Amino acid sequence: MIVSANLARNAAGRLVPSVVNGRPVTGFQGVSVDRPDGRMHGAPIRSCSMYPSDGNKVAESLKSALVRAGLRDGMVISTHHHFRNGDLVAEQVFEIAAELGVRNLVWFPSAVFPCHAKLIRHLESGVIHHIEGSLNGPVGDFASRGNMPGLAVLRSHGSRYRAVQDGEIKIDIAVVAAPECDPFGNMTGARGPSACGVLGFAVADTQYADHVIAVTDNLVPFPCAPWQIAGNLVDQVVLLNQIGDPSQIISGTTQITRSPERLLIADLAAQFVEKSGIMREGWSFQAGAGGTSLAFTIYMRDRMRANGVRASFIRGGSTRYLVEILEEGLTGCILDGQTFDQDGVRSVAVNPKHIMTSPFTSYNYHSKGNIASMLDCALLGATEVDLNFNANVVSHSDGRMLHGIGGWQDALFGKCTILAVPSFRNRVPIIRDQVTTLCGPGELVDVVVTERGIAINPKRQDLIDAARNTDLPIKSLEEIKAIAETLCGGPPQSPSLSEDIVGVVTWVDGTILDSLHKV
Amino acid sequence: MIVSANLARNAAGRLVPSVVNGRPVTGFQGVSVDRPDGRMHGAPIRSCSMYPSDGNKVAESLKSALVRAGLRDGMVISTHHHFRNGDLVAEQVFEIAAELGVRNLVWFPSAVFPCHAKLIRHLESGVIHHIEGSLNGPVGDFASRGNMPGLAVLRSHGSRYRAVQDGEIKIDIAVVAAPECDPFGNMTGARGPSACGVLGFAVADTQYADHVIAVTDNLVPFPCAPWQIAGNLVDQVVLLNQIGDPSQIISGTTQITRSPERLLIADLAAQFVEKSGIMREGWSFQAGAGGTSLAFTIYMRDRMRANGVRASFIRGGSTRYLVEILEEGLTGCILDGQTFDQDGVRSVAVNPKHIMTSPFTSYNYHSKGNIASMLDCALLGATEVDLNFNANVVSHSDGRMLHGIGGWQDALFGKCTILAVPSFRNRVPIIRDQVTTLCGPGELVDVVVTERGIAINPKRQDLIDAARNTDLPIKSLEEIKAIAETLCGGPPQSPSLSEDIVGVVTWVDGTILDSLHKV
Repeated sequence: MIVSANLARNAAGRLVPSVVNGRPVTGFQGVSVDRPDGRMHGAPIRSCSMYPSDGNKVAESLKSALVRAGLRDGMVISTHHHFRNGDLVAEQVFEIAAELGVRNLVWFPSAVFPCHAKLIRHLESGVIHHIEGSLNGPVGDFASRGNMPGLAVLRSHGSRYRAVQDGEIKIDIAVVAAPECDPFGNMTGARGPSACGVLGFAVADTQYADHVIAVTDNLVPFPCAPWQIAGNLVDQVVLLNQIGDPSQIISGTTQITRSPERLLIADLAAQFVEKSGIMREGWSFQAGAGGTSLAFTIYMRDRMRANGVRASFIRGGSTRYLVEILEEGLTGCILDGQTFDQDGVRSVAVNPKHIMTSPFTSYNYHSKGNIASMLDCALLGATEVDLNFNANVVSHSDGRMLHGIGGWQDALFGKCTILAVPSFRNRVPIIRDQVTTLCGPGELVDVVVTERGIAINPKRQDLIDAARNTDLPIKSLEEIKAIAETLCGGPPQSPSLSEDIVGVVTWVDGTILDSLHKV
Repeated sequence: MIVSANLARNAAGRLVPSVVNGRPVTGFQGVSVDRPDGRMHGAPIRSCSMYPSDGNKVAESLKSALVRAGLRDGMVISTHHHFRNGDLVAEQVFEIAAELGVRNLVWFPSAVFPCHAKLIRHLESGVIHHIEGSLNGPVGDFASRGNMPGLAVLRSHGSRYRAVQDGEIKIDIAVVAAPECDPFGNMTGARGPSACGVLGFAVADTQYADHVIAVTDNLVPFPCAPWQIAGNLVDQVVLLNQIGDPSQIISGTTQITRSPERLLIADLAAQFVEKSGIMREGWSFQAGAGGTSLAFTIYMRDRMRANGVRASFIRGGSTRYLVEILEEGLTGCILDGQTFDQDGVRSVAVNPKHIMTSPFTSYNYHSKGNIASMLDCALLGATEVDLNFNANVVSHSDGRMLHGIGGWQDALFGKCTILAVPSFRNRVPIIRDQVTTLCGPGELVDVVVTERGIAINPKRQDLIDAARNTDLPIKSLEEIKAIAETLCGGPPQSPSLSEDIVGVVTWVDGTILDSLHKV
């Protein structure tokens, strides 16, 4: 937590610090002005002469592996969220650090889940100094109240890859949980009792960290083939009793929303995509695994089927419904960054057209292009939107950081970004004069679909023209805002936030887009 | 070519230079003493803002792509040998360089073939200053005669990856030929009219070069999925009429030797592997695609079948015979670095247990272990062997560098390295007091199998014990040497070589193992 001294206004008009956790940073400068120089971070050069020639890198225990990796005060330790709310690895790592008396660690997770509430005690005791990563649930609430001595650095999945690649953050020890792993460290998430599908979020860490430990509850003889991550990147392998709670790793079935309003939003979004001509032979789209997104996916499947249209690819988060679309031949392939249910895991393990990707291929902005910008349509959510289509996805309207960015910022670069949101939640209108936290610049948001109407960004005259002679309920954001305010009894209150800053939202290029304040 | 001043004797007793093509180098220091420090080379950081958001990177022509890449005097240009003796890409690249008046380029191929004789004119004219890479055939002969102004730097496949990774050589422009490629640059060798199988030799180049150009004669819509190399690493894509001569890219069928002596050598090697107990349930081996190696592979297949033994994995170069072994269930998988025939191409495209590898996973010595050292047995060839089991694979006994190192040095690290060689060739004994060029230290060579007997390295008492009570024709190297000299009328003549140096052989860790002299 820092007091709000030395803040400067960035190109989005937001006040942001110039130093974050001791590192000088640059404020956001605009969406397309990024021109990086310099070279990528280099991992330390190792030699086969330093590793067992028989390829057996199995360590006695996680503790001995962490000691051998040189765990000490102030190090950056990374873990990953492939096990989602069933992760049992981060807890074990920091428990060992506490036992060893190590302090002031930086935790660099790929995402935080409610199960990580158990780590709050290590933040309180000083074992963990701060978290660089999107916060969520209880940990987010803890940090929002100013209880974390360092700043939370919120990055999208793509920006996390970029930060590691560019050397913006240097990982000392990466601990990668693998549902199947051999003694050399070859690993996959596609097989094993704790199978979770794609392991993409650990790709950057294994490429660039100083030391890589693979942990598994399913050690198989060499070679674990095909692998997603090669053992050549792994220093040590640890066999644990349990690396995840299977009931929480992936959901057995993914649930479509039953809310009539959400179903209406999904239906309007699907209508928009068909009637504006975005859905056509060879098109592509991405939608998440939330209830509205799943409903949208099913509606698109039905519309593709009815119109005899095939997608060239669909970006996952894969679910049962994407797998059905692939198996029915309605898409050429799934490019999958994250596997959300049992059907996704089954498919990615055997279907050669269900492709494992990583934030490098999909989202990294410091790349020679990425997949996100090639999508014809990306359907996303938001917690708030302002009249310039700027959007928030990390904080509630009370200012607490309760949601991760995920791939949300990265996916904004699609050819048509649709925010599918209710016009109000719990009697609080979500369209407001100013978003509490800016996560996505409005120029990248093309359409906002609510249950009260569809607003098209005035910058997208082509979409306005395409929707003109349809029966779609096109309205301005102002009109939808007014309707919601009438229904809710007025505009939302501004949150009463401290001037103290507890976190920052980075943009995909590493600049600072906004600050998060103590509540 | 340099005169032999400033040479120092390395740990193998060979005189080697301390500077190679202007770069300070270290002499070989021993097999297991390598302790590198420093960090890997970083590629330049690029941004999506600098590339088309629709992912279309197709350039007008190879010439315009090279101009846009900034082709200029002195640059390092890499190409690859996936098309083997059918490569049509290197020629086109240097023809354009000549047209543009560019000079003093360094050509950094992954291997040279006889088809590259066409590039000699660019060496003569000064468009190419020198070649960093194993030489072969006419180009090797040209350089051996002292006609190349710089030194040839001979590296194994693994050492080439290491040199790029470590920044020992910095590639300015990599030109990668892809049998199937999309406009974003995703590519595979497994499909398309010029399909060649695995593209592993270009992996280092695409990761670390300053600029990457993919050339293809088979441009497909995005996504080319599954890809082996991701388009995120590619700057430009060029569509050419022809990137390779299909009749020379891969052989329709791979030929087993018909020579009775070679068949005998292969049979003795197979007998040794079975009778010494190396062949057992779950074992692994590697053999090349030469005639003797193919015969060995077939004999091992028959012996595995007869004994009810299964391999856990076999390393390719894949051929029809490895594919048959996989399909018959005699191996768990093929870990394939290079695809030698149509059956290999067909298999690697569809069989999930036929895994594409690269020199990174298989051979890179500056890695956290690699696959080569985990092999129970590697069967290799050699041009010469001395009484200490030191071996030569690059030069003939007249000193000319006529063969590439390939993965030969890297594969020496297997648990049992067998050199399968005739005791003499063209009436020249191959076992001699001193090898003309040292490529492999004798401590890594375990067994030499000839048609006149099998010699086991005295350092391998375990193998000597294992072979003791068998009917194998175990002899000393001295005995085999004496037999061959009797048959050939005496020991081989020493080549009359100039003191001038025309090339160096690097060891897998980047140190200099030996010098090649002008003939």
